[in-house]
Amino acid sequence: MNITIVGAGSIGLLYAVYCAEAGMKVTLITRTKKQADLINKSGVEFIRQDDHLLVDHIDAYEITTVAEHFTDLVIFAVKSYQLPDVLPLIKEKIKSSSWLFLQNGLAHVEMLEGINQVEIGLAVIEHGAKKEGATSVQHTGKGTTRWAYYKKQDEMSVLGSFFESFKNKQFPNEYAEEWLPMLHLKLLVNGVINPLTTIFQVKNGELLKNPYIREIMNPLIEELTEVLSVPRDKGIKKVLEVCTFTQNNTSSMLTDRLSGRRMEIEAILGYAVRLAKQNRRSTPYLTYTYMAVKGIENETGRREV
Amino acid sequence: MNITIVGAGSIGLLYAVYCAEAGMKVTLITRTKKQADLINKSGVEFIRQDDHLLVDHIDAYEITTVAEHFTDLVIFAVKSYQLPDVLPLIKEKIKSSSWLFLQNGLAHVEMLEGINQVEIGLAVIEHGAKKEGATSVQHTGKGTTRWAYYKKQDEMSVLGSFFESFKNKQFPNEYAEEWLPMLHLKLLVNGVINPLTTIFQVKNGELLKNPYIREIMNPLIEELTEVLSVPRDKGIKKVLEVCTFTQNNTSSMLTDRLSGRRMEIEAILGYAVRLAKQNRRSTPYLTYTYMAVKGIENETGRREV
Repeated sequence: MNITIVGAGSIGLLYAVYCAEAGMKVTLITRTKKQADLINKSGVEFIRQDDHLLVDHIDAYEITTVAEHFTDLVIFAVKSYQLPDVLPLIKEKIKSSSWLFLQNGLAHVEMLEGINQVEIGLAVIEHGAKKEGATSVQHTGKGTTRWAYYKKQDEMSVLGSFFESFKNKQFPNEYAEEWLPMLHLKLLVNGVINPLTTIFQVKNGELLKNPYIREIMNPLIEELTEVLSVPRDKGIKKVLEVCTFTQNNTSSMLTDRLSGRRMEIEAILGYAVRLAKQNRRSTPYLTYTYMAVKGIENETGRREV
Repeated sequence: MNITIVGAGSIGLLYAVYCAEAGMKVTLITRTKKQADLINKSGVEFIRQDDHLLVDHIDAYEITTVAEHFTDLVIFAVKSYQLPDVLPLIKEKIKSSSWLFLQNGLAHVEMLEGINQVEIGLAVIEHGAKKEGATSVQHTGKGTTRWAYYKKQDEMSVLGSFFESFKNKQFPNEYAEEWLPMLHLKLLVNGVINPLTTIFQVKNGELLKNPYIREIMNPLIEELTEVLSVPRDKGIKKVLEVCTFTQNNTSSMLTDRLSGRRMEIEAILGYAVRLAKQNRRSTPYLTYTYMAVKGIENETGRREV
């Protein structure tokens, strides 16, 4: 099976090495020519517990120079705010009937209108992955990939056989019947942990230990479960589980804040705020949290000017 | 007139030099022996615009070693959370019929029950003052001292003649008929500017420039004006005026955060949160802001351990 992965951050690299390990032919598309050159020259280092493996048969291309080609499946592993730039280039160059999206939040789903791929899948990643450099990725926490069809083709499913090929227990996945509840549950978790760890500049586990942050987190969870129609108890349990499971992790949004990168707030809390507004719900904790992250981002921008 | 000033932070030092300049005999009570020794040895340097004056006739004592004495007026210029430690010592040593309190918030007023001074005054300081070192204070912004009687003696008022002696235009004061609206208006200003500048780590003027922080500030002002019974338009106007007037200042709470000192949150937002609870008002922006500062304080404490 030929797989083209767009985006070589932690998740893109993680998928690239697991696909290569499963015997697929992987083409990796990067943002910079430098990263593509390094991967073509040295391969990708893959760290899993105490194992260090070198995966040296991945072809990498910088996105604007990628050769036109046919592929079985395109996996989009860029941030959702990068999709508007990336999608037209990929559509033009890469012929594929099946696409898979790994973005957080729901902003990317709004971009799928009118796209004529015969099969589109959506997935949420519950694996821990850390990019250690341009050509190195660590699988820091074994979780699962939950996936669902957004658009299903009648006959043979590329997505189905793609996910079936990971018999490897190190990289499990689970099929979900419905994509919206799956994305909403993930958004709930991201919408609580990412912004709060970013505002308070703490590791994920600290949200459970600091009683004052809990006084903010609890009503925020309540509001989000209502807005996203996630069953309340299920939502609370899931957020607390993930906080505990990833207690020593620095969330992706805090990592972005600390490195001065753009934060992925619109696709996550921005979506929830707009949904609350449409449904005329009063969500002060959600709005406050959203505005606080936007305010922090605005300050960072201002300082950089 | 003999004046005893308890507390040698920026406001205590500012009052000490202006009282000395007005010809009063000033006794200054410090927390550390080191600061008292330095003041007794070198005097207090007083910076006002381009003037540097040396005020060398202030007697300073560390609080536990202060000699018993009679004085016309005791001015309390410590943080309100320091009052429970300070009040019993002062009561024991210093005989005075008149007391004046300069604290932020309202926590100190709750400590005045059963105190038998014949005259008690409350004041709010709208001057800018910056302590430049143990023996140096700068008058950074000419504002005013608003004062009111909490308890008035029938006959001659020490407080009245104290404030009248500042004919000096550099250090004006204004009398207020009622102490509660005066303190509530000041609490509104402090309760908005101090916490928000602390959470976002910005100078006061930034609250007006950052549109996302404004989205938090506006409903916070609304809730606080309701809880504190401050007329809405008057409250909004006052907060925006002070933000503009002090735009280049670092708020006292942010200064405390940045130096790892305890923050004065209980007397300000803690009081407002409790008042809202008593009156069964829903105040999500107020509660969120209060919990956020407490959460930050909790993290600082945890890191220091």
